[in-house]
Amino acid sequence: MNTLKDLTITIVGIGLMGGSMAGALRGHCREVIGVDRDSDAIAAALNRGLLDHGTNDLSAGVRNADMVILATPVRVILQQLDTIGALVKPSCIIFDLGSTKARIAEKMAQMPPHHQVLGGHPMCGKETSGVSSTDPQLYRGCTFILSPLARTSETTLALGRSLVEIIGAHPLVISPQRQDYLVATISHLPYLLACALVSSADETTSQDPLVWDIVAGGYRDTSRVAASDVTMMLDILLTNRDEVLRAVQTYNSHLKTLTALLENGKEAGLRAQLTKIRQTRLEMFP
Amino acid sequence: MNTLKDLTITIVGIGLMGGSMAGALRGHCREVIGVDRDSDAIAAALNRGLLDHGTNDLSAGVRNADMVILATPVRVILQQLDTIGALVKPSCIIFDLGSTKARIAEKMAQMPPHHQVLGGHPMCGKETSGVSSTDPQLYRGCTFILSPLARTSETTLALGRSLVEIIGAHPLVISPQRQDYLVATISHLPYLLACALVSSADETTSQDPLVWDIVAGGYRDTSRVAASDVTMMLDILLTNRDEVLRAVQTYNSHLKTLTALLENGKEAGLRAQLTKIRQTRLEMFP
Repeated sequence: MNTLKDLTITIVGIGLMGGSMAGALRGHCREVIGVDRDSDAIAAALNRGLLDHGTNDLSAGVRNADMVILATPVRVILQQLDTIGALVKPSCIIFDLGSTKARIAEKMAQMPPHHQVLGGHPMCGKETSGVSSTDPQLYRGCTFILSPLARTSETTLALGRSLVEIIGAHPLVISPQRQDYLVATISHLPYLLACALVSSADETTSQDPLVWDIVAGGYRDTSRVAASDVTMMLDILLTNRDEVLRAVQTYNSHLKTLTALLENGKEAGLRAQLTKIRQTRLEMFP
Repeated sequence: MNTLKDLTITIVGIGLMGGSMAGALRGHCREVIGVDRDSDAIAAALNRGLLDHGTNDLSAGVRNADMVILATPVRVILQQLDTIGALVKPSCIIFDLGSTKARIAEKMAQMPPHHQVLGGHPMCGKETSGVSSTDPQLYRGCTFILSPLARTSETTLALGRSLVEIIGAHPLVISPQRQDYLVATISHLPYLLACALVSSADETTSQDPLVWDIVAGGYRDTSRVAASDVTMMLDILLTNRDEVLRAVQTYNSHLKTLTALLENGKEAGLRAQLTKIRQTRLEMFP
């Protein structure tokens, strides 16, 4: 039972990430079982050909699994980690797709020692959610963070890598703490900024019907992630609060610097900053 | 000389906006002449088939024009409005593509009364600049603000409308002051936020080489406009300073509200705000 092909994989939570994962894995392992408390989601996923079997009974769905992938919001994953151990085979690998990893790693560390555990965080997504948004190609080309614990075996990590590769993503191994620090700035901060932008525009200009005619690409792009699934984002923010607040603080000081230069008409200083920033952005995405 | 077909149009500034405009207009008017102080830009524009003629001599380029379109950064437009009157035919229409309109409208109002004047602001663009980024399709489908002055005749406004329509854009008539207020929030604010985000990420996480592997779509989209042309954006910010600073202030208070809810663990309040914001974003771009 050392290759993906031999595994029965149960995915818990058949939304955008879980459903897309199911569709991407199907055919590459023995069986893909989907579990969701919403029977309509299961029916839709079966209809889209994402699953071999589906159920809304968690115990039944995970009983024979060689690997369980938790694809629910982070705080639901935290709850599930308390109970999943008693429902699965002793050899079952517990894997998750939660966007924050430190709290999940703590919980995983407390599981009975015979369970193999591995944290995962695919760096992709869409601002739409649910089964109707699933796409087996979603993971293609994206970076997929793997956060092993001290107790994670080489074999489990190797299986995680093959799973990531088979769905077309690139595995990147980082510790849970380091991943939480990095994604606070790279992923969670942009979400909060986009939300503040939409909220701000909503208070002022969007009362003006003309705004709807003139919204240009800049606003559209900068605000896009504000349409992300709220439950998912709320869990992310609340389970990575300290890092997110630190990132906001750093960001605020940078915005203040730019604003002060503008307010005081310090043109040379403003030009120097904006030029450096432009250069950085161009180097980030050549 | 009342239809576009009969006009000799000179475009001053053959960058992204001017060059794309030239390419979009060519064939729809008698002649498109390009003026740029950079001879290489002119040569490249001729090579790309954007112009009928090109020159780096402003006087020669505008002498026979029935319409001059100023497509330079806003503060260069402000300077050009001081001198262009003496170089053109009395009947020549002066039109511009500057992203802020109040200061330009003030200058236009001071021109000799025989000149017809009209302000324009196409709500499109790219984060790349220069002739190599030009695209005659750039304006297709975008909203194109027209800001007439009190002295602008019906005929001139009608010509402006046909020009906008012939390049595939949708004309929208707004006063200079109102347009500056609206675009401060919808366009200039997102630029500053994107810049602060890049600057902030640059200080913290981007020193970590792993960041380059994990930047996801959220960061990419939210930061995109930070790569905009600095000279253009600097002119925009400095000529719309009061409105931009006001927009930043409003934005800051919204970000502060969200951050305080997170910091104090006010989950219900945060969920309510994020849900409303998500709904607003979905309504903005259905």
